[in-house]
Amino acid sequence: MKILLVNDDGIYSEGIYALYKELSKIAEVTVVAPITEQSAVGHAITIADPLRVIDFYKFGEFFGYGIKGTPSDCVKIALSSILDEKPDLVVSGINHGANLATNVIYSGTVSAATEGSMLGVRSLAVSLCTKEKFDFTASAQVGAYFADYLYRSSLPNHTALNINVPALSKEEIKGWRFARQGDSRFLDTFARREDPRGGSYYWLVGESRENGEVRGTDEYMVANGYVSVTPLMFDMTDHGMFDQLKDTEGKGEFV
Amino acid sequence: MKILLVNDDGIYSEGIYALYKELSKIAEVTVVAPITEQSAVGHAITIADPLRVIDFYKFGEFFGYGIKGTPSDCVKIALSSILDEKPDLVVSGINHGANLATNVIYSGTVSAATEGSMLGVRSLAVSLCTKEKFDFTASAQVGAYFADYLYRSSLPNHTALNINVPALSKEEIKGWRFARQGDSRFLDTFARREDPRGGSYYWLVGESRENGEVRGTDEYMVANGYVSVTPLMFDMTDHGMFDQLKDTEGKGEFV
Repeated sequence: MKILLVNDDGIYSEGIYALYKELSKIAEVTVVAPITEQSAVGHAITIADPLRVIDFYKFGEFFGYGIKGTPSDCVKIALSSILDEKPDLVVSGINHGANLATNVIYSGTVSAATEGSMLGVRSLAVSLCTKEKFDFTASAQVGAYFADYLYRSSLPNHTALNINVPALSKEEIKGWRFARQGDSRFLDTFARREDPRGGSYYWLVGESRENGEVRGTDEYMVANGYVSVTPLMFDMTDHGMFDQLKDTEGKGEFV
Repeated sequence: MKILLVNDDGIYSEGIYALYKELSKIAEVTVVAPITEQSAVGHAITIADPLRVIDFYKFGEFFGYGIKGTPSDCVKIALSSILDEKPDLVVSGINHGANLATNVIYSGTVSAATEGSMLGVRSLAVSLCTKEKFDFTASAQVGAYFADYLYRSSLPNHTALNINVPALSKEEIKGWRFARQGDSRFLDTFARREDPRGGSYYWLVGESRENGEVRGTDEYMVANGYVSVTPLMFDMTDHGMFDQLKDTEGKGEFV
């Protein structure tokens, strides 16, 4: 099995290294990851600047390719210019922090997996649901478990799975469940500050409002000690609304 | 009607100005837009840097607020800290260039509309499907038409419409149609260059491969002279795959 390993926390981060070690037991892993942290870049790609590809060493050994770009850039350039052949899987993570509910749309980690699936490679994103410093042991094993699962499955090439692991030990995790994306949002506020010259600037203060009450959602699963597994798609059409509008008033002229 | 007007090409751009003039005939418009071009930033938000809000003047008159940030940042800070009350609509554009098919996922213009809908305000994104310099007259009128349409409609608060206007005069445009997002992708390649010191760098060369053949898609409508209108959603769950997986193998334990 050949795996392209990406993340959004940056090639220096602990999470990608923990997952690299675990995946290397079952696959040939190539790391192509951003040089600096890219959290909350969503599905951004770099079009107005050139990309640099830098050899990155860890403990004196070649670890992978560092990219001055976004997670989606990493996937694009790896598949187009770095790898000799198409990998079997794109794996993204381990993200330090949850990618649940509507926050998925802001996630660089998840966008790397979506990008892989758009380019026809089955993909998965792995996130550890904690804001504290935490051990990546269990989430790395869960990541490798689902890499193996996806590799052996007959799911289509455009499959992207979003996996969220509760901050528990392997023994405490109850199992895994397929789940749909929950509906919770951040409550946005901005904190206003003044600079030494009297100018004002604002910090985004996103207050997480996860809701573990709605059964069947990713939030519910994690809140109840399960790993949540959500299949994602890159078609953003609201098909429910489309079907309804198409039938009732689906066209018009300009008068 | 109160409208928040955003874009991703930047507050200096011709497209936002053309739309501003047209919307001002029917609504009270507040402009909050990025100071510099933000194309292809997708749904990125700024969390590691503070945002600046700068008064922007055009032809000697106050035009709006320039933000050193992304289109999604603009919507968040406008609703949270700039506007006195919630607007009736968020309008984003006019984007100089199409936002069709799978490319929607990279679009800053569309992400501003999606962000508005996530925050409970009906939203629309307007894009002009051309790569050349072009007159925004018809697309600005189309934008104002759909602002009025959405304001009068009974669609839910989380509605986001993605509107693509063919590069034709108002008389040549055949009408408008609801459409689903098409399936075409960019073909990515990277052009390798050498800098004067012998280092290499890469430019993304995205070759657009739009397909106007598949009936009912946004690409089809625009290729055939219609304005396409696609309702979008921010739930990224692949519900088809989810329903199937849930029933066949929806859970597991780690052994």
